[in-house]
Amino acid sequence: MNTKPRIAITPGDPCGIGPEVVAKALAMNECFEVCRPIVVGSMAAMKQGIEIAKVDVRLLQVQDVDDCKGEPGTIEVLDSGALDPNDIELGVAKAECGRANGAWLGEAADLALSGQVAASVMAPVNAEALIKGGAVGQIVGTDPTQRYLTLLSGPLRVVHVFDHVNLEDVCRDMTADLVLGAIRKTHTSLRGWGIPSPRLGVAGLNPHAQGPQEQAAIAPAVEQAMNEGIDASGPIAPDTVFRQCIDGRYDVVIAMCHDQGHIAIKTWGFVGNCAMFLGAPYLFMSVGHGTAFDIVGRGIASHEMILAAILQGASLADGRGFLD
Amino acid sequence: MNTKPRIAITPGDPCGIGPEVVAKALAMNECFEVCRPIVVGSMAAMKQGIEIAKVDVRLLQVQDVDDCKGEPGTIEVLDSGALDPNDIELGVAKAECGRANGAWLGEAADLALSGQVAASVMAPVNAEALIKGGAVGQIVGTDPTQRYLTLLSGPLRVVHVFDHVNLEDVCRDMTADLVLGAIRKTHTSLRGWGIPSPRLGVAGLNPHAQGPQEQAAIAPAVEQAMNEGIDASGPIAPDTVFRQCIDGRYDVVIAMCHDQGHIAIKTWGFVGNCAMFLGAPYLFMSVGHGTAFDIVGRGIASHEMILAAILQGASLADGRGFLD
Repeated sequence: MNTKPRIAITPGDPCGIGPEVVAKALAMNECFEVCRPIVVGSMAAMKQGIEIAKVDVRLLQVQDVDDCKGEPGTIEVLDSGALDPNDIELGVAKAECGRANGAWLGEAADLALSGQVAASVMAPVNAEALIKGGAVGQIVGTDPTQRYLTLLSGPLRVVHVFDHVNLEDVCRDMTADLVLGAIRKTHTSLRGWGIPSPRLGVAGLNPHAQGPQEQAAIAPAVEQAMNEGIDASGPIAPDTVFRQCIDGRYDVVIAMCHDQGHIAIKTWGFVGNCAMFLGAPYLFMSVGHGTAFDIVGRGIASHEMILAAILQGASLADGRGFLD
Repeated sequence: MNTKPRIAITPGDPCGIGPEVVAKALAMNECFEVCRPIVVGSMAAMKQGIEIAKVDVRLLQVQDVDDCKGEPGTIEVLDSGALDPNDIELGVAKAECGRANGAWLGEAADLALSGQVAASVMAPVNAEALIKGGAVGQIVGTDPTQRYLTLLSGPLRVVHVFDHVNLEDVCRDMTADLVLGAIRKTHTSLRGWGIPSPRLGVAGLNPHAQGPQEQAAIAPAVEQAMNEGIDASGPIAPDTVFRQCIDGRYDVVIAMCHDQGHIAIKTWGFVGNCAMFLGAPYLFMSVGHGTAFDIVGRGIASHEMILAAILQGASLADGRGFLD
């Protein structure tokens, strides 16, 4: 009997590269060694994705999560009929597709919240299509007091205290409570994912971690965390902590602002990045790229990131910690 | 007749790894193929450095720059007697050594300003020793309106508008004039070093380059620069521009603050970084590491960075542009 964790995969915008990279990833036995993947989306979109990707797999519609076998060579799809196949138009941001995407994300969330799947993995959505379709709300939010954008790039893992926030607002709004909240949530989450004693490297905000925010907010938060038995270090010079994480000194970096983490991740250049919202009510993984309307349909889009997201999701859901 | 550019090399704090890494670098024919290196420092320190580095080179004291031959296998040293050899004590920050270092930097600066050498390359100094010796002023300053800390890391090259400045002050003090000053100085400097049409990627300050400083300062500065015929692009999302530079789209990135550039450089992990102050009155190169008192004397310190600084300095002085 297959007891591997079930992973829901939404194929992303059907007019983008999502279906073809999901097809490529699920054509690899690697996925099935660690999970039972279930596409929550459209049979028509996946059929087209398989053709574009030129992979040799069978496509099977299932009616219920419990019917899924999770066997290599077959892509199993739950299709609620949210998408009219005639609405697929490669390379175009359409309201109908945004709306369908929103529906699939909602279905995957329901499956995750009810425990029928262990994680939800999202192939790239298109912001314009989501807005047109009124479905933006289906993406897990980023309220900094609750959920933290987290990027995974091999051994470099970064939790962001502030995400899309201007620097002057970061400087003004940073408090020990906000930093401590991110530290605590990271500690708890990593323990739940199979890392018994997570080592957290907490970045400073200013050069050499020597500014007013370090004194007023970051250092007190780290001190309080240590008092609570959390293995947190910092504030560490922002230009040092990411390399230390890559070199294995920490399991994760707590970054103070968007570009600390994003510059480190994108400049390092590791292939196979994925994203998640730490603190979300279920394990929600995504990728670091978009729908790539400019190359959709040519079969050249890389599946490295969606594969990384599926494999990371399976590992975390299984309590086996992060994959490097 | 040897017409290669003369490069003055100060061996750094004699109690640190400077002399041994300079000895290693100058034991390689590579340096002599592109320049005539002249150590401006101490015979005794270099003798000890050669012994520690276990390299097979001859040490020769010269009285005047014009006496230098620049032949492989010989390290030529101008020794003004600023250091008493008895003051060398490996791994210790001493006033005497800081003072000697300050004297050598001043001698190298005089040689550069009078055109007797084409560049000055500084092996690592020790801040504590310099302070004790009252010689901090000998290091080229970093007044943001005149001189810009510049880091070179293979194809990734970064000029910093603000250096050791807290982020709230960066947000408050950034003006179009400051950014434009850095853009103009970079353009002029790169042309002088052999890059006829330098391509400048100008970073934003905030996530996705969409904040108030972009509107008020960075975009107007880039626009004005373009009007002046400078090939400047931006403001570009800070998490994108460094990777674009590595991939060859720009010759250099204009970074707004210390950690944008330093995170990119240090996380990328290229070996052979070096530093310079763009806008200084002469070509002044340095390295990205310190005196490493913890490993001094064991012969294990890497010469990659000082070698990169010498080779880059020679290339720029010769008008051959940057080395990748």
